[in-house]
Amino acid sequence: MTEVEYQGTPVSQLFPDEKPGWGGYVEWEKYPERKQIAAELMKQVKLSAPPEFQFAPLPNTNPVLVGHRWKEEHEYLGLKRIVDFSWETVLKEKDNMLHILDFPYNGETRPEDLKTKITENKHHFVRNHGGVPDIDEDAFRLEIGGLVNQSVELKLSDLKDPSKFPQVEVTVTLQCSGTRRIEQIAEYPGDGDELINAPWGEGAIGTAVYRGVSLKKVLKAACGGVKPECEHLEFIGADTYFKKGHLFNYAVSAPLRKVRANSGEEVILAWEMNGQPLPKIHGGPLRVVVTGYIGARSTKWVYRINALPVPSYGPVQRQEYLYYTSQIGKQNAKYSNGFSIGQMPVSSAILEPKTKTVVIHDGKVKLSGWAYSGGGNWVERVEVSPDGGHVWYQVPEENLTEKHYHAWRLWNVEVPVEAEGWLEFCVRTWDSSCNTEPTYVRSAWNWDLHVTSSAHRIKIYSVNTTRAATKERFELMRKHGLEFEPLTLPLPISLEGEDEYNAAVEKRPREPRS
Amino acid sequence: MTEVEYQGTPVSQLFPDEKPGWGGYVEWEKYPERKQIAAELMKQVKLSAPPEFQFAPLPNTNPVLVGHRWKEEHEYLGLKRIVDFSWETVLKEKDNMLHILDFPYNGETRPEDLKTKITENKHHFVRNHGGVPDIDEDAFRLEIGGLVNQSVELKLSDLKDPSKFPQVEVTVTLQCSGTRRIEQIAEYPGDGDELINAPWGEGAIGTAVYRGVSLKKVLKAACGGVKPECEHLEFIGADTYFKKGHLFNYAVSAPLRKVRANSGEEVILAWEMNGQPLPKIHGGPLRVVVTGYIGARSTKWVYRINALPVPSYGPVQRQEYLYYTSQIGKQNAKYSNGFSIGQMPVSSAILEPKTKTVVIHDGKVKLSGWAYSGGGNWVERVEVSPDGGHVWYQVPEENLTEKHYHAWRLWNVEVPVEAEGWLEFCVRTWDSSCNTEPTYVRSAWNWDLHVTSSAHRIKIYSVNTTRAATKERFELMRKHGLEFEPLTLPLPISLEGEDEYNAAVEKRPREPRS
Repeated sequence: MTEVEYQGTPVSQLFPDEKPGWGGYVEWEKYPERKQIAAELMKQVKLSAPPEFQFAPLPNTNPVLVGHRWKEEHEYLGLKRIVDFSWETVLKEKDNMLHILDFPYNGETRPEDLKTKITENKHHFVRNHGGVPDIDEDAFRLEIGGLVNQSVELKLSDLKDPSKFPQVEVTVTLQCSGTRRIEQIAEYPGDGDELINAPWGEGAIGTAVYRGVSLKKVLKAACGGVKPECEHLEFIGADTYFKKGHLFNYAVSAPLRKVRANSGEEVILAWEMNGQPLPKIHGGPLRVVVTGYIGARSTKWVYRINALPVPSYGPVQRQEYLYYTSQIGKQNAKYSNGFSIGQMPVSSAILEPKTKTVVIHDGKVKLSGWAYSGGGNWVERVEVSPDGGHVWYQVPEENLTEKHYHAWRLWNVEVPVEAEGWLEFCVRTWDSSCNTEPTYVRSAWNWDLHVTSSAHRIKIYSVNTTRAATKERFELMRKHGLEFEPLTLPLPISLEGEDEYNAAVEKRPREPRS
Repeated sequence: MTEVEYQGTPVSQLFPDEKPGWGGYVEWEKYPERKQIAAELMKQVKLSAPPEFQFAPLPNTNPVLVGHRWKEEHEYLGLKRIVDFSWETVLKEKDNMLHILDFPYNGETRPEDLKTKITENKHHFVRNHGGVPDIDEDAFRLEIGGLVNQSVELKLSDLKDPSKFPQVEVTVTLQCSGTRRIEQIAEYPGDGDELINAPWGEGAIGTAVYRGVSLKKVLKAACGGVKPECEHLEFIGADTYFKKGHLFNYAVSAPLRKVRANSGEEVILAWEMNGQPLPKIHGGPLRVVVTGYIGARSTKWVYRINALPVPSYGPVQRQEYLYYTSQIGKQNAKYSNGFSIGQMPVSSAILEPKTKTVVIHDGKVKLSGWAYSGGGNWVERVEVSPDGGHVWYQVPEENLTEKHYHAWRLWNVEVPVEAEGWLEFCVRTWDSSCNTEPTYVRSAWNWDLHVTSSAHRIKIYSVNTTRAATKERFELMRKHGLEFEPLTLPLPISLEGEDEYNAAVEKRPREPRS
């Protein structure tokens, strides 16, 4: 691409980094004229269309999707440095991820890395909406303004000073509202924006211990509290967000009620993740953690908090993460006819065995997975069905990791399975408010493909080696040096001897009698 | 491939055409030693494995699958001439087919060519198990032997001589037992042989008027009837059939009871299809037509009929076209623990609209398709549901083609559809014995993926332009020159004006009150 100019100024000079030590942070919200210039420039460029990934099968590649249009948009506006730094950060900070979208980076944890209650930082899922800024800890400042009694600007060292603010450590599960979206896509295609509706599986969820300070206490101690009209706290992130030809800084909000709840432990400003400095890709040096909510509220690289009388006007909250009915779609969706997704419902997933695999067993099949509920609830009960949801077996309490107010429980269970052939296993969970999950994906399918919280179903091909016929077949295969898998590859040997066949049909004739 | 030899004889001389004027007809059944030589040679060659087409998406190509291993096998045994002639015949005799497998040729009729009660010859589906022989009508002879009072050899001109045998014309629907198999594959993969289990859709069915003679009458007039021990009539075809390293001529049988039923009109020897000489690819110069049965019994290129006390020993009937339970599979399937698929059950399909398409309508949606029952039954009632099977609408009798004893009925119906978004439409049929279809694919899934006769389900995205919001959206799109499709492509325009949004949330606040 050749560099674009606007009234004689090349784009590389139009949208500079806002401050020294804040690489890749471009300020949009404070400069309405800059937003307008960007919007005008964007009108002149034709970006790649989003790839079709719902009517067509997902590519069997990693990255699964390539963010051509997002990269083009950044490059066109002279922001290629952000794209480059973001991917460098992925390579440096993450490991073994399934890259759902390479830019903005969306990476999913693989099932084998979800086996511990606390997800390792290098494995924890990432769902970014823009590039990763490169912010120097010493240069960092957090502004708090709006309906507060006293606007302030805090250094990170201020926040970290225990004499100013007491520190908290909270074990928190964060998940994207798109977790398990591939199940909705497989059922019916929906809104097809690869950034908004990335095709996540069961790994867009993770748990970490975050260290930081309670936002409630910061508001009180640093700002002298909020004004009576304040009902919401808006969080602005240093990443650039792009929607339908307009540019913004990332902005969402949480209700003041949430910020104040339970002595303020539910909304924190965190600089540490699992005992390590918060990785840049996860929002370092400072992010918000809003427990029990959709991950999108836990703003990364937060540099400004606005106390507001109403929820954020940012498009992330107003125009996205909306929960529609199954009758709303491209023909009638508006921003006001879906409700805003905030707190997350009870949900669960089977991680092992994987769907469409063969399980050779002796009458018992072991399963494991996660179960979670947001909105201030925790998991009380997990049940697994080996027959599509007819009979359910409870996961014994001792096979669940311990309860946290704001975190998942991992579970494992062994269930009796006599039957052979393709079986549908499913899991469902009850939370502390007695909520359980919808039965089928269709039960809660919605146009923007959010919140796939129906009973998670997998298909496994059951082979029960305690059955005589199966045991015999396995001995025959061993004799011929044959493997059972791949399942669909026909056995090259005769399935039955001539004599055995004749004896069988002699005993049970093929034809009726007169 | 370099030519193989057997004890000094090159393969090109080992398996010659049996008779002059019978191109590509190699006789196996009369020469046990030849079968043994072929089996020994086959042990020395490693053919391509069948392609994986069940765990992986089907290729979006035509042919869908390429019969590499079948071609290699023919070439290895010096029979490449058969492969070449078969494909030449496809190109000459067929038109607009979806080539499911290029060799042996398996071709499906496209929905647009299934709109008339009688399927045109060039469009009629083809399901071949071996290559197409090139048999000269004058050279053709039909042998009848076994448990008959008089073995005979008949010329085609004998059969066609109305003074010897009265001629019949019967309207017959033939279908592969694999029709609609892709639905079973999509649910769960099964036995993975691309020849046996070709991934058919709704078009492996067709109807033609066949002219020929009743087998019953030929047996009586030409052979003086069958001996008392005869219970089955076996049909041998001139095509070469290949299974697990062994070679055969195609052989299946029909019960004598069937041959005798209804004055012998149910099993005929046919040389004419829709008023034209029987195309070579459909078995010309002579084929069997067994009404109401799986197509595989209607042997093409039939050159010998054996009167037997038991069903055919041929592997097509003994070892294939078996109907297993859902608990039988690779680990325990035998030839004696599935039952032999003969008569076909009641079944139906929606041909229009196609699944996963957008239907823009004004409150009514038009559907069309086929409905069929075999086993001596005919279609009495067809019903369509626009809501996944809750409410059903009957197809009016006048919207069904007329009844035939042995043929399908095509149908069309308009059903009221108020709802928008993804809907599941389905069809079910009742036959003259009050049989109807299983509800779900899983209800009758079986390892060899045969007989997909469950209520056929399609997903359509319903857009009801009589609804105000949809009408408004369509006007807006028209103003901006935007198309509705592709469905998943996000609209580039704002879905709602700022004022409209504010008015809406003012009226119906986002947040609860204290």
